[in-house]
Amino acid sequence: MDHLALLERIMSEVGPEIGRGRLADYIPALAQVDPRKFGFAVADLDGRVVGVGDWEEPFSLQSVAKVFGLALVVARDGERIWERVGREPSGNPFNSLVQLEHEHGIPRNPFINAGALVVTDRLLTLTGDARGALRTFLREESGNDEVDFDAVVASSEAEHGARNAALAYFMASHDNMDNPVQTVLEHYFWQSSLTMSCRDLALAGLFLACHGLRADGSRVLSSSDAKRINAIMLTCGTYDAAGEFAYRVGLPGKSGVGGGILAVMPGRGTLSVWSPGLDSRGNSVAGVAALDRFSTLTGWSVF
Amino acid sequence: MDHLALLERIMSEVGPEIGRGRLADYIPALAQVDPRKFGFAVADLDGRVVGVGDWEEPFSLQSVAKVFGLALVVARDGERIWERVGREPSGNPFNSLVQLEHEHGIPRNPFINAGALVVTDRLLTLTGDARGALRTFLREESGNDEVDFDAVVASSEAEHGARNAALAYFMASHDNMDNPVQTVLEHYFWQSSLTMSCRDLALAGLFLACHGLRADGSRVLSSSDAKRINAIMLTCGTYDAAGEFAYRVGLPGKSGVGGGILAVMPGRGTLSVWSPGLDSRGNSVAGVAALDRFSTLTGWSVF
Amino acid sequence: MDHLALLERIMSEVGPEIGRGRLADYIPALAQVDPRKFGFAVADLDGRVVGVGDWEEPFSLQSVAKVFGLALVVARDGERIWERVGREPSGNPFNSLVQLEHEHGIPRNPFINAGALVVTDRLLTLTGDARGALRTFLREESGNDEVDFDAVVASSEAEHGARNAALAYFMASHDNMDNPVQTVLEHYFWQSSLTMSCRDLALAGLFLACHGLRADGSRVLSSSDAKRINAIMLTCGTYDAAGEFAYRVGLPGKSGVGGGILAVMPGRGTLSVWSPGLDSRGNSVAGVAALDRFSTLTGWSVF
Amino acid sequence: MDHLALLERIMSEVGPEIGRGRLADYIPALAQVDPRKFGFAVADLDGRVVGVGDWEEPFSLQSVAKVFGLALVVARDGERIWERVGREPSGNPFNSLVQLEHEHGIPRNPFINAGALVVTDRLLTLTGDARGALRTFLREESGNDEVDFDAVVASSEAEHGARNAALAYFMASHDNMDNPVQTVLEHYFWQSSLTMSCRDLALAGLFLACHGLRADGSRVLSSSDAKRINAIMLTCGTYDAAGEFAYRVGLPGKSGVGGGILAVMPGRGTLSVWSPGLDSRGNSVAGVAALDRFSTLTGWSVF
Repeated sequence: MDHLALLERIMSEVGPEIGRGRLADYIPALAQVDPRKFGFAVADLDGRVVGVGDWEEPFSLQSVAKVFGLALVVARDGERIWERVGREPSGNPFNSLVQLEHEHGIPRNPFINAGALVVTDRLLTLTGDARGALRTFLREESGNDEVDFDAVVASSEAEHGARNAALAYFMASHDNMDNPVQTVLEHYFWQSSLTMSCRDLALAGLFLACHGLRADGSRVLSSSDAKRINAIMLTCGTYDAAGEFAYRVGLPGKSGVGGGILAVMPGRGTLSVWSPGLDSRGNSVAGVAALDRFSTLTGWSVF
Repeated sequence: MDHLALLERIMSEVGPEIGRGRLADYIPALAQVDPRKFGFAVADLDGRVVGVGDWEEPFSLQSVAKVFGLALVVARDGERIWERVGREPSGNPFNSLVQLEHEHGIPRNPFINAGALVVTDRLLTLTGDARGALRTFLREESGNDEVDFDAVVASSEAEHGARNAALAYFMASHDNMDNPVQTVLEHYFWQSSLTMSCRDLALAGLFLACHGLRADGSRVLSSSDAKRINAIMLTCGTYDAAGEFAYRVGLPGKSGVGGGILAVMPGRGTLSVWSPGLDSRGNSVAGVAALDRFSTLTGWSVF
Repeated sequence: MDHLALLERIMSEVGPEIGRGRLADYIPALAQVDPRKFGFAVADLDGRVVGVGDWEEPFSLQSVAKVFGLALVVARDGERIWERVGREPSGNPFNSLVQLEHEHGIPRNPFINAGALVVTDRLLTLTGDARGALRTFLREESGNDEVDFDAVVASSEAEHGARNAALAYFMASHDNMDNPVQTVLEHYFWQSSLTMSCRDLALAGLFLACHGLRADGSRVLSSSDAKRINAIMLTCGTYDAAGEFAYRVGLPGKSGVGGGILAVMPGRGTLSVWSPGLDSRGNSVAGVAALDRFSTLTGWSVF
Repeated sequence: MDHLALLERIMSEVGPEIGRGRLADYIPALAQVDPRKFGFAVADLDGRVVGVGDWEEPFSLQSVAKVFGLALVVARDGERIWERVGREPSGNPFNSLVQLEHEHGIPRNPFINAGALVVTDRLLTLTGDARGALRTFLREESGNDEVDFDAVVASSEAEHGARNAALAYFMASHDNMDNPVQTVLEHYFWQSSLTMSCRDLALAGLFLACHGLRADGSRVLSSSDAKRINAIMLTCGTYDAAGEFAYRVGLPGKSGVGGGILAVMPGRGTLSVWSPGLDSRGNSVAGVAALDRFSTLTGWSVF
């Protein structure tokens, strides 16, 4: 069965899941999204992409952006970031302070909020404009110059961002922030507000499926760095449900509370899915179900 | 033996402890205090005060100020503060975030930093000027109009106050801050910078020993509120060494990282001691030793 | 007003509280007690005791026994027990493993279950028969040779004692058990099953109110050891509600899930109360209310 | 390069790592193993196996046995075990009680000790002889009837097993043990004492690399169950270093404190390595280094 037919079948099968779960209501701008949205796309290593449903409609990347921020920092700075952030699953909610206190301000991994704040801080130091660098990167990788921030979401995040401020100040108290806390927070909130469609996202992630190369053969990351980012996505990419995601889907993936998920099948391609209803751990209900079905029907699984 | 002779004997006995411990070096301005300082004063219910050593030299109140901030809020606002802060010993360091997270932004008691931030926030709402109200209160109770802030200490605290900022933002994320976080922090840092001598401190605390009354018979607090603040001092007043302090000294007490301690013997009087060297829990080494001796020699103990 | 009239007035006032709360249903034998029971007694330093309600009916001491086990060990062994158990409030439920793990098998205080297991282990080493020694002690102090174990409760505790077994094995893994774990557990369960009336209990605790002396002038403990046990009762005696109890009642106290509470007014006397309905922290609802009223009406408070 | 030449090269390259780290000295019988031991084997899907060093010498499986216990339970009982144990990385040491308490006696995953105790309990219920069933299984899969328990190690584990007893009793207190705690513990300790060589282990694990099939085509597990066990190995198989292992090695793996590691390359084969010196997380220092080199040199990685 070709991919398009397959995506259509899956969209039909997971229909009952679409609209289930709850929206990320702690960010008012996200709480107004239509919960019936569903988009699903697959891209192969040659850069061909097909999709179904709302796959060409932009949505808020939220934490999905973290994987690209990490890739940018690793590409420019190599292994140095690992002195300031770990690589282990956290076993705790994404915005927990408990573990951060036990571990003296070193976040467990780059995909929990505290870790992503450290990555943002480093990207700010490396580029002078973390949010701008990330937008440019996503535009280039997706080939879509329309990729942009959503100012309403960004300011909504800032207004409701006291928890992230607490995390950032706590790390500052452990000397794990190089730039002023309020500046890092601002870049972090803007990054999270980036909007892309499933089409854009599947294309933008292709270098992770292709050993660090783009479809045109140019290199984003070394092969081993691409593998390593995939490893971190698999163990840490879906909040405290990474074990469950690995068990059901079997692919490296990164989710966001906007309802988007990027999944990577090394050597084959990428999948991106979007549906706003979230489960109790913050992952898209219909999105995980769709990836689960895709993995089962195609055998795409790293295991 | 009269009190003055007793204080002289104790100062002599605890001599070897003076200078032991470490200064509160996380606040640069405090790290420069002479570690050989030692002052000790006792006041009786009639407002007579005697002292030895450096008992008339002002020192930085730090957390000792928290007991007066709490008294001001309780005096004006009654029991309402207990909706926003608990009354239980924390069992954790004074600036811990762990418990605050488990308990959804409600600090365990008003003497850990998080709890004192809530009290400051409330005092700000009640008075419009939390730091000013506290200075006025301490001037009145001590009868010394020279009691004042130390601007160097206050700005030093602000510069090194990322941990307190983390606590305050975390509570804001749980809707337990009414005023803007940065404003509350500013008042909090200024309050901690208040300086008083042992003489001033022993006099200022007399209302707690006298069922809420001043030496002149006017009332600060109801009798039951005074008892309750003493109860909280006993169970929570000396960081995570409250059990040890109750075991050794047997009096309600409140310590600060400036090396000061106020202790209360209900119906008898107050003790204040200052010596900058701190033990691992942040209490004055020579100060606790002096109070321990006083309690043993006089039988002043609530037990 | 004399004490008897006062107790009668209080029993009437707290009537609406009697029967409120829930029984300790995790121990089947305790779940069958009549929830309407209420007894209240007061003893003075001369050994005179009066009481109201069910004050002469034996009830299950449960954790109230811990204060007598501790007194026995301190009387025989001095300060050595403090190498194996702390003296700080725990800030956690009485049977929590979390803190025990963080602190490497040293329980926070002798009144949480883990700490009482250590005290039992030590008493077993010192006497060869921990449970027997405790029964003898309580018979002597109360002057009642009928004080005894309740075999049904003891075996019920053993059957439902997996949590306590976990605590004991955990401490054994940290070399903080000298005797075989199963033996210590057996003595612990039997001790908890001791039954006494309010009358017996008020008399048995008098030495704590009287600086370590019995009414006849003979000595149980040194004066300073009696003060110290009172201090530990105040900071740690009522599970994770010690702060609340100090705030409301203002007396050293030790409660048990059988619904009993012993409270001590140093230099004045003892209070004992029993009513089986427990609040969410495991303290008797009507019992705490009665002590609160007594404290308010008489001024008995250490603060 | 053929596999044998490759293994020889790697053994030479990791020579400096052999003997580094510390032995598992909390089990006396393991502390006497020669720290210079090093064995390394690779098996392909056809059941061909080659090895170097001490690859034919039996060593103590310890936690490596857990993956086979889980496979047996899943093979007989399907998904039911997941009602009693989770599938998420723990983020805590393998024998931690903290998380178990927060999560009410449901272990985070089947490879931490608490989870393996639940699996053993279930295997005991299913077979009547958990340790015997596991020995039979390993003999069949390895084709070596000499695979057996080490009675000295088993009794050494039992003697030093207080922590595991604490875990088991704690789960019993949450009704998550069906059999008597002491019986489950005995089977658990015997299982951990099973000894196999690298040759045996590589062969015994082949069904995990081959979608649940043996080399002769007979089936141990369904294809999806094999994938799922691999997923759990990747996210949870190397104690609290699973993220690091995924990052460096990129293969599902299960380690034991005997110094052994089994790694699986789905669709290609298995690797087994043994060297007793452990890093701070309990994984073989030379073993991880050897797998890291193999992965780099061959491209065997799921990412």
